[in-house]
Order: sequence, then structure tokens, then C-alpha cells
Amino acid sequence: MIPTPYLLLLGDEKNKQMVKTATGLAHWRPEHCLGQLRFHKDTVDIGLPDLSICEAVSKGAKTILLGTTPIGGALPASWKEVLLQALANGLNIASGLHIRLAEIPELKAVAATAGQQIYDVRHPRQTIPIGTGNKRSGRRLLTVGTDCGVGKKYTALTLAKEMHKRGLKADFRASGQTGILIAGQGIAVDCIASDFLAGAAELLSPDNDEHHWDIIEGQGSLYNPSYAGVSLGLLHGSQADAIVLCHDASRQMIVGAESFHVPDMQDCIDLNIRLGALTNPNIRCVGLAINTSSLSEQEARAYCAAQEQRLQLPVVDPLRFGVRPIVDKLEREF
Amino acid sequence: MIPTPYLLLLGDEKNKQMVKTATGLAHWRPEHCLGQLRFHKDTVDIGLPDLSICEAVSKGAKTILLGTTPIGGALPASWKEVLLQALANGLNIASGLHIRLAEIPELKAVAATAGQQIYDVRHPRQTIPIGTGNKRSGRRLLTVGTDCGVGKKYTALTLAKEMHKRGLKADFRASGQTGILIAGQGIAVDCIASDFLAGAAELLSPDNDEHHWDIIEGQGSLYNPSYAGVSLGLLHGSQADAIVLCHDASRQMIVGAESFHVPDMQDCIDLNIRLGALTNPNIRCVGLAINTSSLSEQEARAYCAAQEQRLQLPVVDPLRFGVRPIVDKLEREF
Repeated sequence: MIPTPYLLLLGDEKNKQMVKTATGLAHWRPEHCLGQLRFHKDTVDIGLPDLSICEAVSKGAKTILLGTTPIGGALPASWKEVLLQALANGLNIASGLHIRLAEIPELKAVAATAGQQIYDVRHPRQTIPIGTGNKRSGRRLLTVGTDCGVGKKYTALTLAKEMHKRGLKADFRASGQTGILIAGQGIAVDCIASDFLAGAAELLSPDNDEHHWDIIEGQGSLYNPSYAGVSLGLLHGSQADAIVLCHDASRQMIVGAESFHVPDMQDCIDLNIRLGALTNPNIRCVGLAINTSSLSEQEARAYCAAQEQRLQLPVVDPLRFGVRPIVDKLEREF
Repeated sequence: MIPTPYLLLLGDEKNKQMVKTATGLAHWRPEHCLGQLRFHKDTVDIGLPDLSICEAVSKGAKTILLGTTPIGGALPASWKEVLLQALANGLNIASGLHIRLAEIPELKAVAATAGQQIYDVRHPRQTIPIGTGNKRSGRRLLTVGTDCGVGKKYTALTLAKEMHKRGLKADFRASGQTGILIAGQGIAVDCIASDFLAGAAELLSPDNDEHHWDIIEGQGSLYNPSYAGVSLGLLHGSQADAIVLCHDASRQMIVGAESFHVPDMQDCIDLNIRLGALTNPNIRCVGLAINTSSLSEQEARAYCAAQEQRLQLPVVDPLRFGVRPIVDKLEREF
């Protein structure tokens, strides 16, 4: 687990789209977000108190967290300077960058001297085994998608929140870097050597109590020609008892592979069920989570109602309407 | 391309099962295998001339190739000593080990000074892109399997050899370390970060002449709970026009996941066709390659005939009977 609370480093980022890690964290884990560190007045403001490193430390911050994803991956000199100060003042570092901060010699040296940790969350800290397919105890729900970027993480987090509200035992299991920073733990399965992909998914949702649910963040789509292998390894290793299909109501073509159509939702459910049955023959779909941001509220309600009629499953927009009908179904059926 | 010819390093390995890389190479590329280097009289003998490093160099060897896979992955001190001598005498090194020889400081330093290359063939030398699904020119055949270790590499090599014999334009494309050492190039897709798996498969069989065939070595099986993600990424990225299903006639359960049944061959063909159609709607199966080593020759002929009748496709044992009926079908249909 990454020590909390966090100071979110926004640096000199001016583009709101580039600080989604920080906004996701402030939305899902406000209790872990003490403040933001901005280099300039025109740096993006995500609404947290502005704190210096010393102020954050005096308020109890434990980790400085990179809230942005610098394009290209290299770390600007001004950022390195701030991270060195943070380490020297007793903060750990958490980063979702592709590059490993723990391998930058100055950071590594100061962290070792100061006794602080550098969490490069894209890169696993534990040894990943080969998958076995052995049945694990406890229950698992995996969010799957008709494409990338259709709300699989958001849906999983919303499901876990609703289940906690009802007093159900549930854990959100993060399979990507932003999810890991929100959860404080997880495995970025897209960075795992493909031989160990199913093994990583098995490690992500270990044996648990009979009535405990792991709510696993899905990745990619079986219909995305770039990432379907990742989706299948995660599906097999998760041994999902239940899936929730995520979809964007406005999406016609696969992002990044624009000659490929987004699949029909029923086809996508069927294929996930067929393939998931290899490691869990009882897999079933318990609902759909639609991003309806392209529709008016009235259109969104009509869209969900029509799909519910057609697919005979609960259909919601988690952001607009919550996920209660899906959790109702889970409670009824399991 | 790894420079040839090779001196095959067998070291102190006494177990014939552990030198499959060397025996595969001596079988498929005898013209590239000058000799073997054994530390002791009781080291496995694969039938090549015994040569010292100096003798190999004087006969024109260009690369010393690790012919074994040490368990555990660490490199014994006696092997390192020999590799240092090889570098100092002008040989390159090729290795299919998990560990990177190029990162062992002494080897790295001597290679840099001597101007020799260290080929860690499990680890890609080129930058791997994200897959795109964009259609490529030329034709592709992928060997797929009901499980791991059922002859996908052997079948692909046999198909390429038969096609060359007929004057057809074909290249064997290696997706695993032994295949790469045989071909002198390729990408070990199981070592690629899973996000880049389909991209690696796309890079492996690039655009080519209209009538040229890439004969791609498959990996794993869609029915193997440990590796199905690898198989799917490779299937999608290969955009296979044709598949050949490989199967071991004696195999009942999946190796390493013994509660999982080896699938029915027709089911396995159907699933590969269904999933492969995402990136190539014209994908079809052109035959089956069976490992019948558990059967007598008469039983093997009866087995192949019965399956041919049932599946309505050419069914051969490549080792015993060759692959002519499959290449006949390819020539008829394409």
C-alpha cells in the first residue's frame, strides 16, 4: 500500500485533460488528498488547497504523487528538483509514468539515504507467476468494454462504493496506473510481459471470504485489435463470476483503429461469456454501464430503457443514475 | 540478423531434454552449425564436431550460441568465463535466456571493447509499436494449437521448407526464442509487455509481395488458461489468411493446468476462425498437424485418416508424413 495522505504534484501543467490522474484521485479519494503543488499561477487548479512541500509535510502528507502524465515520458528538470526536495523532507513518491523514477540515479540515491520509497506503479514490485487456472475462493466481478476508454474504471469504483454503502464486503482491484493510485495498490497488467498476464490477473484478486467481492477494473476490449490479448488474459485470470459491460453511447468506431466498428453490446456480452467460461463456467453478465454524456438526460433515460428492454439486463449510466439496479441484481442472484 | 555460422555452447549440460535449442538448430539449420563446445566428456553430445573457441574462430564461426536453457536463469561462472573468451576472440553471443547477458557488466564491457554484439533474443532490439489492425499486403499462415508444446514451431518450419521446395515465396517468422535462433531473427512475443503484443505480431510479418507467404510460429492456445491472451494477440496481429491447427494425439489435459481438458479440434478451429476474423474476415483453416509419436505408424495413419474424414481438411503428422497435402490445399485455394 502506498502511504497516504498525498500531496498532488501538478507542476507547470496548463491542460486540464492532462491532470486526469489528479482529478480522478481527488474525486474518488478526497480523504487522501491534502493539497496540490503548482509551480505557477496559471498551472491547472483542481480545487485543492495550494501547499508547499514543507506545508504538506507539517499537515501530515506521506507521499507526493505525480498528478499528470508528461507527454514523451521524460521528467523535466524542474520536477526532479521538487521530487528531490520532497524525498529530503520525508515524503515518498508515487508515479504512474512509463519511465521508472526509482532508476533515476539522483532520486534513487536520495531515497535510499532518506529511507523513503519510490512507487513506480506501472511496474510491479512483486514477482508475477505464470497463471494456473486454479479456482480461487470468493467472488469476482470484472468490468469489460466494447472499447477502451468507456468507463470501466469509473464503473468498478462506483460499484464498489455502492456495495460498501450496503455493508457488502467488496474491494476495488486496480489493473491500470490511475486505478492503482486511487486504490493504493494493484497491478498495471498492460505493462506485464504477456506470458505472465493471466498470472498477474490471478494475483490481483487472491483467495478471499466466500461472500467477498473483488470488483476488478477491466482493460481494453475483446474487439479492439490493439489490446484484445490483454482483455482475454485479464478475463481468464479474473475467473469472473459476473461481468458488467461498459459502453459509450456515442462511440461508433474503435478509438485508435478507426476502420473497426464498436461491436453490438449483445455480441460483446456473448463473446466475453463464451471466453470467460474457460476459467469460470458460471460466468454471467449482470448489467451494462453506459457513458451517455453525448445525450441529454431525457435521451439518456430513453436509451437505457430501450437497451434494458432489448438485453433484459439492468442498464445504467453510473455517473448520472448510479449503479443500484446492478447491485440489486448481484444481491438477488448471488 | 544474427551472424552465422554458430558454435553451439553445450557447457556441462548432461540432460538431452535441456539442449532442445541446440538440437533444433542442428536439425533445421545444419549449414549454420560448425560445431559444439562441451566442457566435459559426459556433457550431452548432439553429434556435431567438438571445437574449442580458437578452432571455431579459425573455421569461420561468427557467433557462440547458448544451446541450453539453464534452470533458474542465472549464468554459471564457468559459462561466463567461456563467453568472455569468445568475445575476446571476435565471436558474437546469441542467447535465449530470460536474463539479459548484455546487462552483465563484464560481458557488456568486453563486447563494447571488442566491437561484438550480444543478442538476447528474448528481448526485442527494436521499438515495438501499439497494434493498429491496419491491413498489410502479402499472405500469412499462422500455426495455432490445442495446447502449448504440440508442434507449432516444427509445423511452421516444415511448411516453409516444403513451400521453398516448390519454389513458392515464403518466410518462416519466429515468435519464440528457439525459433529466433533458427531463423536468425524474429520477436519473442511472450516477453513483450502485453499492451504491445498485437503490435509485436504486426511487426513480425510486415507488408510483403502479393504472393509471398509469411509462415508464422504460433504460441500457446486459446484454451490454455495461462497463455490464451498471448495466442489472441498473436492471432489478431498476424491477420492470418490461413491457420493450421497443431495437436498432440496423446494429450488429454492442458500441460501445467491439468484440470483443463484439451479442446476438441473442431471447436478449436472454430474459435480461432471466429476471433481471427476481427482482423482478417477471410481467415480459414487449411489443415491439421498432429504429433502422433505416441502411436504406431499404422495407428497414426488410421488416426489421420479418421480425422480427415471428420474435419474435411488435410490431416498429417509433419515429422512422419510431411505436410504436402496442406501445401497442396494452399496452392489450390490462394
